[in-house]
Amino acid sequence: MSDNDAPLLVSRDARGVATLTMNRPANFNALGEEMLDALQSAFDRLAGDDQLRAVVIAAAGKAFCPGHNLKEMIARPELAYYQQLFNRCSRVMLAIQKLPVPVIARVHGIATAAGCQLVAQCDLAVASTDAKFAVSGVNFGLFCATPSVPLLRNVAPKQAMEMLVTGDFISADEAKQRGLVNRAVAPDRLDAEVESLVASILAKPRKALAMGKDLFYRQRELGTEAAYQLASQTMAVNMIDGCAQEGVAAFTEKRKPNWS
Amino acid sequence: MSDNDAPLLVSRDARGVATLTMNRPANFNALGEEMLDALQSAFDRLAGDDQLRAVVIAAAGKAFCPGHNLKEMIARPELAYYQQLFNRCSRVMLAIQKLPVPVIARVHGIATAAGCQLVAQCDLAVASTDAKFAVSGVNFGLFCATPSVPLLRNVAPKQAMEMLVTGDFISADEAKQRGLVNRAVAPDRLDAEVESLVASILAKPRKALAMGKDLFYRQRELGTEAAYQLASQTMAVNMIDGCAQEGVAAFTEKRKPNWS
Amino acid sequence: MSDNDAPLLVSRDARGVATLTMNRPANFNALGEEMLDALQSAFDRLAGDDQLRAVVIAAAGKAFCPGHNLKEMIARPELAYYQQLFNRCSRVMLAIQKLPVPVIARVHGIATAAGCQLVAQCDLAVASTDAKFAVSGVNFGLFCATPSVPLLRNVAPKQAMEMLVTGDFISADEAKQRGLVNRAVAPDRLDAEVESLVASILAKPRKALAMGKDLFYRQRELGTEAAYQLASQTMAVNMIDGCAQEGVAAFTEKRKPNWS
Repeated sequence: MSDNDAPLLVSRDARGVATLTMNRPANFNALGEEMLDALQSAFDRLAGDDQLRAVVIAAAGKAFCPGHNLKEMIARPELAYYQQLFNRCSRVMLAIQKLPVPVIARVHGIATAAGCQLVAQCDLAVASTDAKFAVSGVNFGLFCATPSVPLLRNVAPKQAMEMLVTGDFISADEAKQRGLVNRAVAPDRLDAEVESLVASILAKPRKALAMGKDLFYRQRELGTEAAYQLASQTMAVNMIDGCAQEGVAAFTEKRKPNWS
Repeated sequence: MSDNDAPLLVSRDARGVATLTMNRPANFNALGEEMLDALQSAFDRLAGDDQLRAVVIAAAGKAFCPGHNLKEMIARPELAYYQQLFNRCSRVMLAIQKLPVPVIARVHGIATAAGCQLVAQCDLAVASTDAKFAVSGVNFGLFCATPSVPLLRNVAPKQAMEMLVTGDFISADEAKQRGLVNRAVAPDRLDAEVESLVASILAKPRKALAMGKDLFYRQRELGTEAAYQLASQTMAVNMIDGCAQEGVAAFTEKRKPNWS
Repeated sequence: MSDNDAPLLVSRDARGVATLTMNRPANFNALGEEMLDALQSAFDRLAGDDQLRAVVIAAAGKAFCPGHNLKEMIARPELAYYQQLFNRCSRVMLAIQKLPVPVIARVHGIATAAGCQLVAQCDLAVASTDAKFAVSGVNFGLFCATPSVPLLRNVAPKQAMEMLVTGDFISADEAKQRGLVNRAVAPDRLDAEVESLVASILAKPRKALAMGKDLFYRQRELGTEAAYQLASQTMAVNMIDGCAQEGVAAFTEKRKPNWS
């Protein structure tokens, strides 16, 4: 599916777990056009994979991702170019939210600007304690506007504002405390911790998670009453499905569900 | 008002504090149809009680509430049945928000699925340190869609998502840190801590709290400017009321307000 | 610009940093009509100052601000008066959000009711560890409706509700943990900590921060897709601007940007 020189290494195991490894360690896996296209292509393909169960976004080399490729950007000082570039990046980010399976960021080293955004946009995130997070575009005069979208939906507003106007780093432990990542673990436990989340996801029916993830993001944007209406309907449809019928029957009969 | 065999024991003291005790310890106080109807009836009656000052939701036996009654659910595999069931449950939850007095969850033991939702939906919550919280429907193939509505309005989204896709428990201390409950205290201090909140509420005028609670949930769903408009009007109406006139006068005169 | 007897001392240094010091220590800097007018006038003037870079809101004497002037309020028991008073106060609060530069609260002593609101409404806040925060109007029968607007947009809802119905104080450390302030530091480090934020802001281009702050509050009120659209456009317009062109070029050339 991918060669060793590709900007993005895509592997997918027999369980349906896809791992996307950003593979431009020489530029710290910057989100240049090549990388954005590779991510979009991968998400497009995975969206059609009925057996997909989870996605892990990881990175090769010392860093997770430093954000956009600044050399590319400075070479094309045109408004129309920047518009399509940021729209393209936003489309990649929204593709994560639209995938019907949980997407987990596996973060080590620095995650800055659109790299921090990528972490914020994932459904779940596990960080190594050596990871550092910043929305640092403001340091070179470019406010991290698009990163602020998922950042402000993950952390408290004054904490988000401070990161955005100072460009300062926060540690993995701070990121966990603030809600930007789910877990912060020693570097040698990073893979095991990601795998524990993956294993938990694999133990649940794909369909229930797909309905649930879709509902999660939809109801968030509704008022409480409308959110309850949509959620009640989602839950009824989920309950009438075979996976829940078998799961609930098994539970009441004190046996394991047979979902195979 | 209630007999000892009722699914819900309702007591109301002379101060206007109603305590609703879920009373089906044999099935851990599952939110079956009987329990949902009892809660709805109680909320309907309390909504017309002009002397009501606060509501405490508690539970008999080892657990707070495990969510829906799965045996009932599996016995009626019909979409229409599930639709009315979840709508009925959502109506109970929204009734908590609509009551004109603060509603406090008194939580011990497990609070899972719609039981965890009940905690999230209350205005305030005090947990015993032996309490555990999960939205665990996904374990049997039923994503906790309706519980996700108040959960996502209480805790950070990645923390909510992790609970929803893993079904894992969090402790009372974690629930406090994340904002799902206000306080986590030793089991033998649970009643005293609930009472301290009740006593604080009783020391305030009912009308001010009623206006305030209504405003709180309304303004949350508005943009900031519209929220300020509504809040300014609410505060002016509150200020012209006798309770605030007396309270503010007393404060400026350095005496206790006479609200009796 | 201001005399020593003015309700608000306004200083503005050569760097473009304005410090507004509430100067009615005898009544703990209550937000009476005089103080509200002085704040509004100051914000109106600062909004037209093209060289402004940051605003610090501070207070003289023992307290930051106890909220409205209750003696003034009780003297005019008229609905129309209260309506215009709270509208006027809300307009002051919204002016903070509309200023094109970051506004930092420098908080010591008590910050209650509309004083706590002022902290919540600022973009950033640094508190002395001797600071205490409450929305205590309910203690005299006046629910802190307008303070609840920024409070609920800063801290978790159950924590906000508890503060609003009990009127109880929280410490500076709790305020930091909950997201109400960015930092809580020893009293003798308060100015240095505010200055470190100011210095960080001054090191960034004004225009990038202005675009970013405006985007921050706009996108917060949009759904995720609309937020991404607005943010993408903002970022493209920011990138084509001279400050970002120079900043990014400098970064790729490993030199300091020349923004003077």
